[in-house]
Amino acid sequence: MKFRKKDKEFMLEAIKIAKKGRGRTKTNPLVGCVLTKNDEIIAKGYHSSYGQKHAEIDALDKTEEEGLTLYVNLEPCSHYGKTPPCVKQIIERKVKTVFVGMKDPNKKVNGKGLRILKQAGVKVYQGCLENESKLLNYSYLTGIKKNRASVTIKVALSLDGKIAACDGTSQWITSKESRHDGKKLRNKNDAILVGSGTALKDNPVLNRSLRVKNWKKVLVDRKNKVAESAKMFKDGKIYIWGKRKNGLDKKPKYLKAKNLKNLLELLRKEGIQSVLCEGGMLSSELIKENLADKIVAYISPKLIGSQGLGFSPSEWKTLSDSKKLCDINIKKIGKDVKIEGYLTDVYRDN
Amino acid sequence: MKFRKKDKEFMLEAIKIAKKGRGRTKTNPLVGCVLTKNDEIIAKGYHSSYGQKHAEIDALDKTEEEGLTLYVNLEPCSHYGKTPPCVKQIIERKVKTVFVGMKDPNKKVNGKGLRILKQAGVKVYQGCLENESKLLNYSYLTGIKKNRASVTIKVALSLDGKIAACDGTSQWITSKESRHDGKKLRNKNDAILVGSGTALKDNPVLNRSLRVKNWKKVLVDRKNKVAESAKMFKDGKIYIWGKRKNGLDKKPKYLKAKNLKNLLELLRKEGIQSVLCEGGMLSSELIKENLADKIVAYISPKLIGSQGLGFSPSEWKTLSDSKKLCDINIKKIGKDVKIEGYLTDVYRDN
Repeated sequence: MKFRKKDKEFMLEAIKIAKKGRGRTKTNPLVGCVLTKNDEIIAKGYHSSYGQKHAEIDALDKTEEEGLTLYVNLEPCSHYGKTPPCVKQIIERKVKTVFVGMKDPNKKVNGKGLRILKQAGVKVYQGCLENESKLLNYSYLTGIKKNRASVTIKVALSLDGKIAACDGTSQWITSKESRHDGKKLRNKNDAILVGSGTALKDNPVLNRSLRVKNWKKVLVDRKNKVAESAKMFKDGKIYIWGKRKNGLDKKPKYLKAKNLKNLLELLRKEGIQSVLCEGGMLSSELIKENLADKIVAYISPKLIGSQGLGFSPSEWKTLSDSKKLCDINIKKIGKDVKIEGYLTDVYRDN
Repeated sequence: MKFRKKDKEFMLEAIKIAKKGRGRTKTNPLVGCVLTKNDEIIAKGYHSSYGQKHAEIDALDKTEEEGLTLYVNLEPCSHYGKTPPCVKQIIERKVKTVFVGMKDPNKKVNGKGLRILKQAGVKVYQGCLENESKLLNYSYLTGIKKNRASVTIKVALSLDGKIAACDGTSQWITSKESRHDGKKLRNKNDAILVGSGTALKDNPVLNRSLRVKNWKKVLVDRKNKVAESAKMFKDGKIYIWGKRKNGLDKKPKYLKAKNLKNLLELLRKEGIQSVLCEGGMLSSELIKENLADKIVAYISPKLIGSQGLGFSPSEWKTLSDSKKLCDINIKKIGKDVKIEGYLTDVYRDN
């Protein structure tokens, strides 16, 4: 159906405030809610962190008005979880109309919320800014559909697609502005993921520009190559897929994964909904295994030469095998260009 | 010096109309001229084709007013060539002030035009939109400074920097919109240049979206691999670096070049100021030989895989060897991104 410009504006506002919960909702989705009357905003709310009020309740608690219109990016829940079902309160508070961004694919909801609202006489319109709603929660959707943490690959590339020169030098391919923007990506993900190659070669701290409690770092070190002295162990909560490293001050969590997919499943069980992979070879492996959901590439207008190090897997033989990114976003950053897009379509079929 | 916003606007207009002469001035520069009085435009002119009026005269001929201000992107000429010197007429017509984009590095001018004007009491301001003026005439400048045709490389790339999958398939990496934009590039250059690889593999017609008399195509076929039946021979003026092909209806011009650099020198002698290279391997060779002046890359957000075919040379060992593009221009085209930039700095030191 076609939505009014006003409806889209209110939904966009709901999506915008939903983002405030980023990094604190664990395996819950990001949800924002806007209440209006006669196209004027009466109250707003969002799901601020795991265990806290849902967005709809957060908004409803801020007003006593009745007969409101409610905009929420995700189908209101219909089940008793950490909090009572939102649909119950929406009906009790005599909300007249509900606009929903997307259905909640969580088995406990999955259309039931919408049905209950309709049965109670609430007018329900589903699919307002559906794509935007799905993109907002692609990590949650990956979790629900694939039972694993979602993976974003961050990569700095030359125009000719290289992540390092043939002698391994790679600092820095992109500009200061791009690197700064890249650091902000860390704040949008629950954890950062690197392989032993990156940990050894660059020895990065993997810090975060925002001060966040329990900033999480995941190391894939299957061959036990990374020493206890690696800078990344200095702070944050550490997860290691690899052998025990006895000399570490802070006790890391060791994960016994069968493979990369299983590692991402285990991470989700740890409440990590999204990881940002910054490693070159590990990124290639994740793409090859169909485990990369999103790519954020910073392209610098320079040529490194065909002997430089590429970042894509070497599996595909012909052009039709190539992996297309969808929902592309292109942005200039200084002299570089940032290209974002999605590799998996988990958020599409819902 | 700092120029007023108004001055820049008039100079930009001069640059804009200068472009109308593109493809018809042979080895002459592109020049546009704007005449103003009290910051109102009185007349405009441009150099429309080789042998025709210079831009300044074209503009002055349209008005009888005196005491005007003249904006021209290139230093007015001081020598008798195909036409009498412009400075003479500027002085005779009692132009009060002259704004110049850049000095003309042509040995016959090279500051002399500016000097004569000043000596005659004309106020002269040089360097208004200097960079834009240089970019406009980078082909002319390449000709003057390096005595050869300038080279623009057009390339369609995947996000991972490939021009074809490992089985050679490359049609099409980029979108229809990018390909359409790429065809328009042909109109901005005097000739199109391909190697035998491209002529054999893709067998392109190399047509032009605008109907132009004497549309020129250059084939590098050092090993005489391309047959007479190749589609590119069907129309246009053909130049071949390679052995004589007897079966061709239209007589091509055969060039005996010593090397790629010499080929570009010979092409300039033929009145070809700029070539657009669309071939993969030939592009790489031109970049390697420091003969590529500009790159226009269309990047499609897809991954072809590390075994795909790259386009850059394999000479450079470390990151500091990498070739940086300058004067970058970034534009979204459909789902692709177009990155333009210059590899040589011929237009910088003037």
